[in-house]
Amino acid sequence: MLNSKDLLGLRDVTPQEITQILDLAEDYKKQVKGGQKKFSRLSGKTLVTLFYENSTRTRTSFELAGKYLGAHEVNIAASSSSVQKGETLIDTGKTLQALQTDFIAIRHPMAGAPHLLAKTVKASVINGGDGMNEHPTQALLDMLTMRETFGSLSGLKVAILGDIKHSRVAKSNLFGLSKMGAQVWVYAPKTLIPAGFDALGAHIAHSREEAIEGANVVMGLRIQLERQSGGLFPSLSEYSQFYGVKDDMLKLAAPGAIIMHPGPVNRGIELTPSLIDGQSSRIEDQVTSGLCVRMAALTLLSEYREKNGL
Amino acid sequence: MLNSKDLLGLRDVTPQEITQILDLAEDYKKQVKGGQKKFSRLSGKTLVTLFYENSTRTRTSFELAGKYLGAHEVNIAASSSSVQKGETLIDTGKTLQALQTDFIAIRHPMAGAPHLLAKTVKASVINGGDGMNEHPTQALLDMLTMRETFGSLSGLKVAILGDIKHSRVAKSNLFGLSKMGAQVWVYAPKTLIPAGFDALGAHIAHSREEAIEGANVVMGLRIQLERQSGGLFPSLSEYSQFYGVKDDMLKLAAPGAIIMHPGPVNRGIELTPSLIDGQSSRIEDQVTSGLCVRMAALTLLSEYREKNGL
Amino acid sequence: MLNSKDLLGLRDVTPQEITQILDLAEDYKKQVKGGQKKFSRLSGKTLVTLFYENSTRTRTSFELAGKYLGAHEVNIAASSSSVQKGETLIDTGKTLQALQTDFIAIRHPMAGAPHLLAKTVKASVINGGDGMNEHPTQALLDMLTMRETFGSLSGLKVAILGDIKHSRVAKSNLFGLSKMGAQVWVYAPKTLIPAGFDALGAHIAHSREEAIEGANVVMGLRIQLERQSGGLFPSLSEYSQFYGVKDDMLKLAAPGAIIMHPGPVNRGIELTPSLIDGQSSRIEDQVTSGLCVRMAALTLLSEYREKNGL
Repeated sequence: MLNSKDLLGLRDVTPQEITQILDLAEDYKKQVKGGQKKFSRLSGKTLVTLFYENSTRTRTSFELAGKYLGAHEVNIAASSSSVQKGETLIDTGKTLQALQTDFIAIRHPMAGAPHLLAKTVKASVINGGDGMNEHPTQALLDMLTMRETFGSLSGLKVAILGDIKHSRVAKSNLFGLSKMGAQVWVYAPKTLIPAGFDALGAHIAHSREEAIEGANVVMGLRIQLERQSGGLFPSLSEYSQFYGVKDDMLKLAAPGAIIMHPGPVNRGIELTPSLIDGQSSRIEDQVTSGLCVRMAALTLLSEYREKNGL
Repeated sequence: MLNSKDLLGLRDVTPQEITQILDLAEDYKKQVKGGQKKFSRLSGKTLVTLFYENSTRTRTSFELAGKYLGAHEVNIAASSSSVQKGETLIDTGKTLQALQTDFIAIRHPMAGAPHLLAKTVKASVINGGDGMNEHPTQALLDMLTMRETFGSLSGLKVAILGDIKHSRVAKSNLFGLSKMGAQVWVYAPKTLIPAGFDALGAHIAHSREEAIEGANVVMGLRIQLERQSGGLFPSLSEYSQFYGVKDDMLKLAAPGAIIMHPGPVNRGIELTPSLIDGQSSRIEDQVTSGLCVRMAALTLLSEYREKNGL
Repeated sequence: MLNSKDLLGLRDVTPQEITQILDLAEDYKKQVKGGQKKFSRLSGKTLVTLFYENSTRTRTSFELAGKYLGAHEVNIAASSSSVQKGETLIDTGKTLQALQTDFIAIRHPMAGAPHLLAKTVKASVINGGDGMNEHPTQALLDMLTMRETFGSLSGLKVAILGDIKHSRVAKSNLFGLSKMGAQVWVYAPKTLIPAGFDALGAHIAHSREEAIEGANVVMGLRIQLERQSGGLFPSLSEYSQFYGVKDDMLKLAAPGAIIMHPGPVNRGIELTPSLIDGQSSRIEDQVTSGLCVRMAALTLLSEYREKNGL
């Protein structure tokens, strides 16, 4: 059981809660990979995915997590929704509540939108990414894949390379991994490192080599191609040349190091194809972890709701 | 059981049929609000929502009504459908019939489209709004919320303010409420009152005050922002100033009067925020009523189908 | 049980496999038309429809086939998918695999895309139309409707009229019908007959009359209106005049001949309204056959998966 109605970020989650989610997710993962995809844990409950940004990956993952658990599941895409008619997020939330929704997985371009929604509705809100703020289930799935590979998160060195500034993935990983005793190193173009990131516990590397050296995990971040026109980096080929991860760099990492990426990858930009498809890659495993972390979060939030009569 | 295969409007529905729908919807509402959202009444039946106009609210309400009742449920949005390939509504209907569809909830910009579809298919057609004609489930949900508040519809004064001319909500409410013994008063800019509305039984008020005085229900209608460019009213702020409902007007209404709106509300235009969010507001309750009225309509149409071997 | 994990086309399928699909589909059709639409054969399995081209008809048919069989079903439309973010088909396939997808029904504008996907994933891939290559479930549904009408496919003369060149329907029908002992005759503007079509077993007619004379089946193909601007035919009215099927032409056909079309029909262009809606038309029946052929294909692929431990 979690300590709160919602899963909005990892900043305020305890290590015990993280462990509980990862434990249950690991259990679900064994069953799901063994072909068991029909559970009744959320039978008669309603999950709405409310996505104000496109994301087939994350939306489908939440959708299947709900369906595998037996929930009623409905997708609302902002492009076809009342939002276009000028409805506020709070009014949308009240409507979903009146339709007896139990869980809302929301993605929104503005930081804090899920928190606002969570205050408005009795439903449990899961943050599926809010602006440059957090994306907690992504970090949890990353941690599950790391924990399954190394047995523990404590003491790991995790190198994250790429557009740190605009990355809610990096921020949630920083919060989560730090709590679990791992070290997070980041390397990025100077324009793409957020102010104060070191104060939050991140180690700022001065070179790719420094970040990767001795790392157990090398994580590329998706470069948002639309940033380039904003002048934050000169060109894709230069970005790739100076900030991408190349095949031979893996030699600097710790033995048994793994390659991760939240996907979808721009092949040859953040990571080389041979790293993406190689033995060290955990990119596909991350997707399965994502499904199972979401199933676990839904289940544990459901326990909270039952205990608190929601 | 209803007297016809389809629910196309309230013009031709009997008071007995309305009462039957409201009774069953009230029963569903108690169960649904008590957390019971898994029924098998429509198990093995197929519901298609066929929406030629965007509406997340109404579409989601029908979708969940079908899912809560155990039906197979499929959404077809005109924007991605064969309609784009020039298929006629009749051919679309025949295709849905051949796929063994039992229920079609249709929204269409042209008045009469659901009636044409209903003649073509064996499936039961529910009108989810057709042009400026009718929107029967909206009026039924309004009536359910009124009946639950006041115990009976008979003798109520219902004031409807706003763009009456383009409103299928106003028209269906006029038909339904008149049949149930309520009085419907309307107030609107003169350009937005349809010719002959009084002959249908509506009282045309000459001022907001006349409409609201002694009313048990004060209903704002959604102003379609796109109408403004059509020159039907001078500006939003003038519309709001002269035709919107203000906080102090509620004093003119009957004691215990309630505020209603089909949603989504343009905050501060049709209604002030304090009315929308205040104690008298039933706007959220209307959404729950909508879900349950649709569950009831599907159930009663299903009875008709069984009795008639459809 | 089929001999392969996937159903990519009819070119490499045996007559025995075709018969097996048609037999099972015929059985499903009786049950489905009798009102039985709830099966558990695919309970706990996951079907994804992955459509890179719009098609409400085919997508809805696959969606309902999955739902009637009890599968978890998810729709991914390219327009809202990661494809927009530049993800490759192979990476999309790997993601779906990691989400534990068992079946993927794909439509793609490029010939061979389903084959590429099938090599990448353990899931069973069903080709829902790839460029100008194949559309096997369409040909199977055509064959089911023909077999139900005439008792057997062997010895039938099937005349296909229209844009043969761009038609995956014509190609899959040619492969399938030839294997089952039927004769396929085609008639089209010379610019719209693909090179080498006769070498594949088709008879090229020199006139509509030659194609239709003695035919048991007269099949119109959907003219893609966007082809006209490509200069492949002068105008729609001339296309209709010289290559469309007219009412009186049916007299040339064999007694009891039927009219078919993959839909949606451009009324009055490929076929006259009286042919579309007349007694000889099987256009609606084709839709029901399509649903059942897809249910049969999913079931038989599922058997293959079980036998092979997938």
